[in-house]
Amino acid sequence: MAGATTTAPLAISIGDPAGVGPEIIAAAWERRETDALPPFLAIGDARAIRAVWNGPIAILSDPTHAAAAFATALPLIQVDDPGEIVPGQPNLAGARCALDSLELACGLARQGMASGLVTGPVAKSQLAAIGFAYPGQTEFVAERCGMSAGNAVMMLAGPSLRTVPITVHVPVADVPRLLSVELIVGRARITARALTRDFGIETPRLAIAGLNPHAGESGTLGREEIEIIRPAIDMLREDGIDVIGPLPADTMFHPPARARYDAALCMYHDQALIPLKALHFDDGVNITLGLPIIRTSPDHGTAFDIAGTGAASPNAMIAAIRMAADCAARRR
Amino acid sequence: MAGATTTAPLAISIGDPAGVGPEIIAAAWERRETDALPPFLAIGDARAIRAVWNGPIAILSDPTHAAAAFATALPLIQVDDPGEIVPGQPNLAGARCALDSLELACGLARQGMASGLVTGPVAKSQLAAIGFAYPGQTEFVAERCGMSAGNAVMMLAGPSLRTVPITVHVPVADVPRLLSVELIVGRARITARALTRDFGIETPRLAIAGLNPHAGESGTLGREEIEIIRPAIDMLREDGIDVIGPLPADTMFHPPARARYDAALCMYHDQALIPLKALHFDDGVNITLGLPIIRTSPDHGTAFDIAGTGAASPNAMIAAIRMAADCAARRR
Repeated sequence: MAGATTTAPLAISIGDPAGVGPEIIAAAWERRETDALPPFLAIGDARAIRAVWNGPIAILSDPTHAAAAFATALPLIQVDDPGEIVPGQPNLAGARCALDSLELACGLARQGMASGLVTGPVAKSQLAAIGFAYPGQTEFVAERCGMSAGNAVMMLAGPSLRTVPITVHVPVADVPRLLSVELIVGRARITARALTRDFGIETPRLAIAGLNPHAGESGTLGREEIEIIRPAIDMLREDGIDVIGPLPADTMFHPPARARYDAALCMYHDQALIPLKALHFDDGVNITLGLPIIRTSPDHGTAFDIAGTGAASPNAMIAAIRMAADCAARRR
Repeated sequence: MAGATTTAPLAISIGDPAGVGPEIIAAAWERRETDALPPFLAIGDARAIRAVWNGPIAILSDPTHAAAAFATALPLIQVDDPGEIVPGQPNLAGARCALDSLELACGLARQGMASGLVTGPVAKSQLAAIGFAYPGQTEFVAERCGMSAGNAVMMLAGPSLRTVPITVHVPVADVPRLLSVELIVGRARITARALTRDFGIETPRLAIAGLNPHAGESGTLGREEIEIIRPAIDMLREDGIDVIGPLPADTMFHPPARARYDAALCMYHDQALIPLKALHFDDGVNITLGLPIIRTSPDHGTAFDIAGTGAASPNAMIAAIRMAADCAARRR
């Protein structure tokens, strides 16, 4: 069971302190018993949490004390004080706090002082304004782990569906020329390994979507399935990986279709994200595959528009905590 | 209430007689009382239905007798005998039967002898083999109604979602250059009118999806939102149409998001079909908007692989029948 007091706690970076990060971390701590959550340690700013929550906070300097403190207070390591943070009003000091939190939480995970990293939501535009030169937290974490970001694979996971976008934050017009046999095979191999190592699935079953309507309908609606996707599938099968596809994307996400695979590899962002969020908007988890550490995050943004109002659901954060703990337990 | 015996029956074309059309029409008739279905009339081949069903069939020559026959038998108008049809084994005689059925059913609807047209599933490759030169049944029906197929708009509808693909059966690589302000505005206007005329929604609310991830994220992930979709939205608002968008496609299909609109206009096939089929695989209806007649069909194919086994669900056919009857009642 994850959460035994002898294992290191999870480290949760607070994300942008003016977003919903502080309140969903606090709400997750409040549900530690009802949801049987493992010990975790927030990294961030106590004042930002107190602005939205009046529960007990245990400010620590030594992360090894987190597990003992967890039963009666939310353990927190304070980063440089960003000054007063107003929910819903991001500023540069808050962005710096978000980055400091991410950096420290990532470092704890890399050193084994945390059993995994859960990242709260950040605002990319705010981070860019303080000189953060990465497309997102994933690329930063990959680099801190000494890896190329291209070998870190984003998976979105909900209770009944896991999807992996092969291309991610690129215009739709660029997707066809960005797809290649090598890219698909690389992402699929990392996914298959992670399903075994982190999710305990001995023989993972992958489903690979077509790019075009009806998966190209034998080439009449596009040739990427014939020229790129099918050769990638052949290569994966030569590896001994259980793969089906290219499947028409519109008929692969209803319950009987989902039962046929453990993860769906999709050709572009919305092909992966539309079904995931249609089905699991409230409890989807973003997990980065292929890293030496475990890293998850709730699959939603800072939600500045509702920060501090109590409207934010902690369900995705709780799901991210649980998934990180489960994966960490499997790696041990 | 649709189904009063004084109104004309719905005409249902059998589709490919070797597909699941015969059995789902028969199964729908069996549920006429439990599901309170209005009188309908099958157009097709009695022997193909008897091959998969042993219920009563009333073979008629006059469609006005259908309503009286409906209580005790499935009313049917026989087209030219295709010979023996084996479920799951399509042949050219069956394709001819499918086309004859479609043509007659469409004619009955156009002449007002049927209150609407419901089309069973056909195999496009089979139809092409007998010289059918249309991309699908929709274009054929539009032409028979004296319209340009470009003015017939496909909508997919389930109990909790309606979607309209702006581009349909084209490769993803072609979508960006096929999108235009005129195309989006034209499809949206037809959709808005049909939501009022056929669905009884006085002030329809439309949501328009972006093309790119995060709806282009202010142009950093693609410029179609700025250059095409937003100008189209502005033009629709000048018409007085209630429109939101361009919305990130991945966050517009969970329940609270769906509650904000009556139909979602999507930029390409899978953007519209993925959420619809993920949520309503079993009871999605394809309805053609903008025609002088009502035309619906179950949103699935011939399913030759399960034809005759009893595995096919009639739910989508029943939903298509009910939707056609409801729309016809509103037009009266």
